[in-house]
Amino acid sequence: MYTDFYNKEVLITGGLGFIGSNLAHRLVAVGANVTIVDSLIKDYGGNLFNIEAIRDKIRLNISDVRDAYGMEHLISGKDFLFNLAGQVSHIDSMNDPFTDMEINVHSQLSILEACRKNNPKVKIIYAGTRQIYGRPQYLPVDELHPVCPTDVNGINKMAGEWYHILYNNVYGIKSCSLRLTNTYGPRQLIKHSRQGFIGWFIRQIVERKEIQIFGDGTQLRDFNYVDDVCDAMLQVALSKNSWGNIYNLGGSEAVSLRQLVEIMIGIKGGNYHLVPFPEEKKRIDIGDFYGDFSKIKSEISWTPKTTLLNGLKETIDYYSTHFSKYID
Amino acid sequence: MYTDFYNKEVLITGGLGFIGSNLAHRLVAVGANVTIVDSLIKDYGGNLFNIEAIRDKIRLNISDVRDAYGMEHLISGKDFLFNLAGQVSHIDSMNDPFTDMEINVHSQLSILEACRKNNPKVKIIYAGTRQIYGRPQYLPVDELHPVCPTDVNGINKMAGEWYHILYNNVYGIKSCSLRLTNTYGPRQLIKHSRQGFIGWFIRQIVERKEIQIFGDGTQLRDFNYVDDVCDAMLQVALSKNSWGNIYNLGGSEAVSLRQLVEIMIGIKGGNYHLVPFPEEKKRIDIGDFYGDFSKIKSEISWTPKTTLLNGLKETIDYYSTHFSKYID
Repeated sequence: MYTDFYNKEVLITGGLGFIGSNLAHRLVAVGANVTIVDSLIKDYGGNLFNIEAIRDKIRLNISDVRDAYGMEHLISGKDFLFNLAGQVSHIDSMNDPFTDMEINVHSQLSILEACRKNNPKVKIIYAGTRQIYGRPQYLPVDELHPVCPTDVNGINKMAGEWYHILYNNVYGIKSCSLRLTNTYGPRQLIKHSRQGFIGWFIRQIVERKEIQIFGDGTQLRDFNYVDDVCDAMLQVALSKNSWGNIYNLGGSEAVSLRQLVEIMIGIKGGNYHLVPFPEEKKRIDIGDFYGDFSKIKSEISWTPKTTLLNGLKETIDYYSTHFSKYID
Repeated sequence: MYTDFYNKEVLITGGLGFIGSNLAHRLVAVGANVTIVDSLIKDYGGNLFNIEAIRDKIRLNISDVRDAYGMEHLISGKDFLFNLAGQVSHIDSMNDPFTDMEINVHSQLSILEACRKNNPKVKIIYAGTRQIYGRPQYLPVDELHPVCPTDVNGINKMAGEWYHILYNNVYGIKSCSLRLTNTYGPRQLIKHSRQGFIGWFIRQIVERKEIQIFGDGTQLRDFNYVDDVCDAMLQVALSKNSWGNIYNLGGSEAVSLRQLVEIMIGIKGGNYHLVPFPEEKKRIDIGDFYGDFSKIKSEISWTPKTTLLNGLKETIDYYSTHFSKYID
């Protein structure tokens, strides 16, 4: 299916992180020549262990996407850019809005300018986020839903996404954006809880600690297993339909946080209790959210294939085996 | 009507520019204590002549809104902030996207952080732009129209606007945004054509040169005379309904570029011809545009009061008298 990546030059920004490293494994498996750019910023998700198994099959370049000159060189000659580097913590974006802006806005412009100058034929897949929709005005949320970000990260990711669409439309640099929903799976950061609740819940399960759910636990979310997200990225990269488009990803069902946790507990045991929302999280919380992914389903034939139960089993297995590599 | 501004501390960023300086005149006239921040960046629109008549009644601080430390001091103790500083040229934003980003994104975050830390009770009126809607999907364009910016400036202004709404919603810093359409009137930059066509057309009329219209001249636009825009800003500043809101401004009628030019020629004489769109302008052009301003009309009771004919007469008179002050 992905044989078209054979011997292709592929750059993955944020390639030591959760989704980037999973994508690297997939691309190496089909014979792509993968270069990873990652700055290993503390607390961001990059982890050398994520690529240990493919270390001698990729080129690893430790650098920051904010380094415009470096990016100009690194982008040259690449066929595909999976542009996944980003600050992803909503709460960090409120506490340090400038760093979020530098990475999610400034760097994206640098990367696109580098492409425009040095490699306008590259194909770019940008990791967007459903965060930019804010609190849903209707459910499920499709791509026509108004954007209404509730935190600095949402605003900055929106600008970064629009730069990609603009450079596609104005300069013909083939770009598209996938608006990711809650993604989970092996190689995710579980060191702290600031990048979302799933990794953190999984850590509590593996450590046999009690899970705390904020609010009443009825908040609905949808979830994608990381392999399905990688499939979406690989499929849009090879499609002729993608360029200039924005696609929601999404799960097959909406699941409450309590249901999510109960599935985890069913797999491995454990317990949870409900606690009030901390104020700093409450004010940027978006309530129920689940996305409509019918656009990518009809245009690119992508659907998520992994059930939440199976995905969580894989994930919990993974962290049970490799726990120490993810908590240092 | 604006007596509530008497003895109030007012900061105007971009206050030497077109709209900012007109606003300063209005505020001085009602007894506000006006401080102007402007960096007088070459080609941006700031002009000391714009405030010559009120020079001894305002405090003038020549500095850049990118200077975060300076802004922290300047914002302290102010009752109102009319936040008008910006890079406004669409074409410049494509040629130098980083400068546009620094001013329209980074600085806005600096200003809002300064308010959050040093003056969370300030009321902020942000000068947004209809540019962020991009090519209209329907006409007239209301605030629910999807945003779809067609240039870097549009993306950056969108981010800057969202920061304001976010800081209102999350931190309770009273902010609102007016999405300005084509504004014209005295004190506008006419040195070059990169900040829009109206000032440039007026210069040709005053200089008795032939006007060039790109395309077939049937492109529809709406126009606001600067006094009406100042009224909108002053009215939202004093309203309880404004905060957290985004309002379109707009003209009472949609007018083609040919009609606009023919009105100008009717006032002062002159002639025009049609020329093909330059490629760099064509690819960011938005086609027909006119806005629906019924939201601000119903919530704030604002309507534009100046006819295009009267506004253009005032404008052409102004530049006929003060031409030399605007072309150096």
